[in-house]
Amino acid sequence: MTDHMTRFTLEELETFAHDALVSGGTSAENAAPLAHAIMAAERDGIASHGLAYLPTYLEHVACGKVDGRAKPTVLAAGGVITVDAATGFAHPAISAGFNLLVDAARAGGIACLAVKNSYNAGVLGYHAERIASAGLLALCFTNAPASIAPFGGNKAVVGTNPMALGVPDGQGGCALLIDQSSSVVAKSELIKHARAGRSIPVGWALDAAGQPTDDPEAGLKGTMLPSGGYKGFGAGLIVEVFAALLTGATLGIDASPFSGPNGGPPKTGQFFIAIDPCATGGAQIASRLQRLTGAIDGQSGARKPGDRALLARRASLNEGVEVRADVVQKIKDLVENRI
Amino acid sequence: MTDHMTRFTLEELETFAHDALVSGGTSAENAAPLAHAIMAAERDGIASHGLAYLPTYLEHVACGKVDGRAKPTVLAAGGVITVDAATGFAHPAISAGFNLLVDAARAGGIACLAVKNSYNAGVLGYHAERIASAGLLALCFTNAPASIAPFGGNKAVVGTNPMALGVPDGQGGCALLIDQSSSVVAKSELIKHARAGRSIPVGWALDAAGQPTDDPEAGLKGTMLPSGGYKGFGAGLIVEVFAALLTGATLGIDASPFSGPNGGPPKTGQFFIAIDPCATGGAQIASRLQRLTGAIDGQSGARKPGDRALLARRASLNEGVEVRADVVQKIKDLVENRI
Repeated sequence: MTDHMTRFTLEELETFAHDALVSGGTSAENAAPLAHAIMAAERDGIASHGLAYLPTYLEHVACGKVDGRAKPTVLAAGGVITVDAATGFAHPAISAGFNLLVDAARAGGIACLAVKNSYNAGVLGYHAERIASAGLLALCFTNAPASIAPFGGNKAVVGTNPMALGVPDGQGGCALLIDQSSSVVAKSELIKHARAGRSIPVGWALDAAGQPTDDPEAGLKGTMLPSGGYKGFGAGLIVEVFAALLTGATLGIDASPFSGPNGGPPKTGQFFIAIDPCATGGAQIASRLQRLTGAIDGQSGARKPGDRALLARRASLNEGVEVRADVVQKIKDLVENRI
Repeated sequence: MTDHMTRFTLEELETFAHDALVSGGTSAENAAPLAHAIMAAERDGIASHGLAYLPTYLEHVACGKVDGRAKPTVLAAGGVITVDAATGFAHPAISAGFNLLVDAARAGGIACLAVKNSYNAGVLGYHAERIASAGLLALCFTNAPASIAPFGGNKAVVGTNPMALGVPDGQGGCALLIDQSSSVVAKSELIKHARAGRSIPVGWALDAAGQPTDDPEAGLKGTMLPSGGYKGFGAGLIVEVFAALLTGATLGIDASPFSGPNGGPPKTGQFFIAIDPCATGGAQIASRLQRLTGAIDGQSGARKPGDRALLARRASLNEGVEVRADVVQKIKDLVENRI
C-alpha cells in the first residue's frame, strides 16, 4: 500500500459508497443495489466502475440527470417483466424486476426483463452474473449514447453497447461470464490518454471527418472504431435493438451524454433474457461447460473471458481493495459540498 | 447470361433443388423446407449456400452423415420448444417447431426453440427473417465444428458460429436482418483461395503452430482468426453456449466436419429466441427502427447489414437467377448416379 492509495475491506467500501450516495440525495433503497455494484467492480479489478465513478453519480443526482429518489414501476405478464426506471438509477430498476424475472424463467423456461427510462447500467456482466447465480442462463444488453459510426460512415449511430453472457454453474454461482462492448476500446481509454497527453494507437478511433487518428482529443470529437469492423457495428446494432427498440428506451442517437451535467436524463435502456437450461435440453450445462472451457484452459497462453476478473476477485476477498486516495477524497469533498 | 451459367426462375430453382433432394433419398417432407432455403440463398446472392451446396447435401445423405428421412420429434412446455432433429436436416427440424415457437411467443411475450442432433443450418439469417416475418423479434444461434482458437492459443475451440437478428417490420416482413459469423471470413474463402492457388491476406487465419499465414492450405490445417480478436472469440463462445450447451447438441470440439463423408452426423444445434415487441415496450419498433437505420442510410458510403442481400433479392425477383452451369450439371450427374 502506498500513500496514494486507501485500503478498504469490501464491506467498508460498500458502506462508504452507500453512505455517500445517501448523503448526496439518493434514497437508501436506491443506494443499496448501486453501492453493491460499485463494491463488486472494485472487487473484480474494474476500477473505472468502482469508486472512481461515484463522483459522476453524485454530480448527476445533484444536477437532475438521474433521480436518486425515483420509484421504478414494474409490470409482469407471461414471460415478460417491464420496468420504467422513471429516470432513476438502472440498478434499483433492475432489482425491482429481478425476482419476477427469475420466477417467470423458472415457471416458463424463458423470460425477459425490459428496462426503459434508465441510466448507465455500470458493469453489464454484474447483472449477468446475478441472473446466472440464480441458476439461469443470462444474456444482457444495455445501450449508450451513440459513439460508433457505421462501416463507411463518419457519424455515430450506436454506443459502445455491450452484450454480456452469464452461465450458471448449478451451485449458485456463475461458471462463465462474458462481457464485451462493441468498440475496440472503451471511451474512457481515450479520456485517460488525453489527460495524460499521450497519443492513442491508430485503430481505436476516427476523427470528426471519419479519418484514422492517433490524437485522443480528435477521437473524442469523432467516433469510436467498432471491434472487428462492420461486425462490431453489427453487434452494436443488435444491442441497440434489444436495449432501446424492444424496451421503448431512448436511442443512442437521441440520448444525452453519460458524462457531464447537460442534456437531462439519458433515458437509455437494458434488456435481460433469462433461460432455465433444464427446460431447453441443457441439464448437463455445468459439466459440459467444463469440457468447453477445459479446451481453452489446456492451451498455454490462452485465456478465457472473465479470467482476469476472477483473479482480482480472489485477491480482493482475502486482502480487500486499494482505491486511489484522491478519488476517496473527492467523494468526501463532494458529500460535504466542498466542490 | 453466358454459356457458363444457367438461368432459373426462383420457382424453377426451388423445384429443381426439391426434386434433386428427393431423387437422392430425402423425403419430400424434409426436402421442401431445405429446397426453399436453397432458393432463398440464390435469390439473395449467397451462392455458397445455394445450389452449390446441394452436391454436399446429396453426398451426405448418401453416406449417412445426414438422415434425409429423419422424423424430428417436438416437445413444447411453457415458453420452450425443443426439437430432436434425429440427425436429419436442420431445416425440417426447425420447421417442425416453428409454429409452436410463434404461438408461444405471442402467448407469453417471449419463447425459444432449441434444436439438437441437427446439421448445418445453412444461412442463419434465413431463419431469423422467417421469425421476424411472423411479427416477432428473432435472435438466432447455430454452432459448427471448431475452427477458431482462443486468444493466445492455437487449438480450435469454437466454430465460425454465427449469430443472426431479425427485426419485424410490423407488416409481415423483416425490416432489418443482421447475420454475422465470429470469424473474419468464412472457411469457404480459404478453400476458394486454395483452389485458385492464391494467397490469403494475413489476418484471416493462423497455421497449425498458431502463426499468421498467407497460405490458405496452411490456414485450413490451422485455425480461423476471430473477428475483432478476443471479442470475436467471445461472440463464438456465446453462440456455442446457446446452440450446443443449452440445447444438448454436440460441442464444436466434438462435432464431425460439415464437409467430407467422414465422422458420421455432426449432431450440432440451433437456438432461436422469439420476442413479441408489443409485450416488452417496443410497440413502436418499426417506426423507431426507421429512425435508427435512417441515421445509417443518411451517410454517403455507409451501408447497413443486409443491404447487399436486399439488392440481390430485388433483381432476382424480377429476372430470376443465374447459377454456374457446372454446378447444375454436377447435381444432375449425382442424381443420375453418374458420380
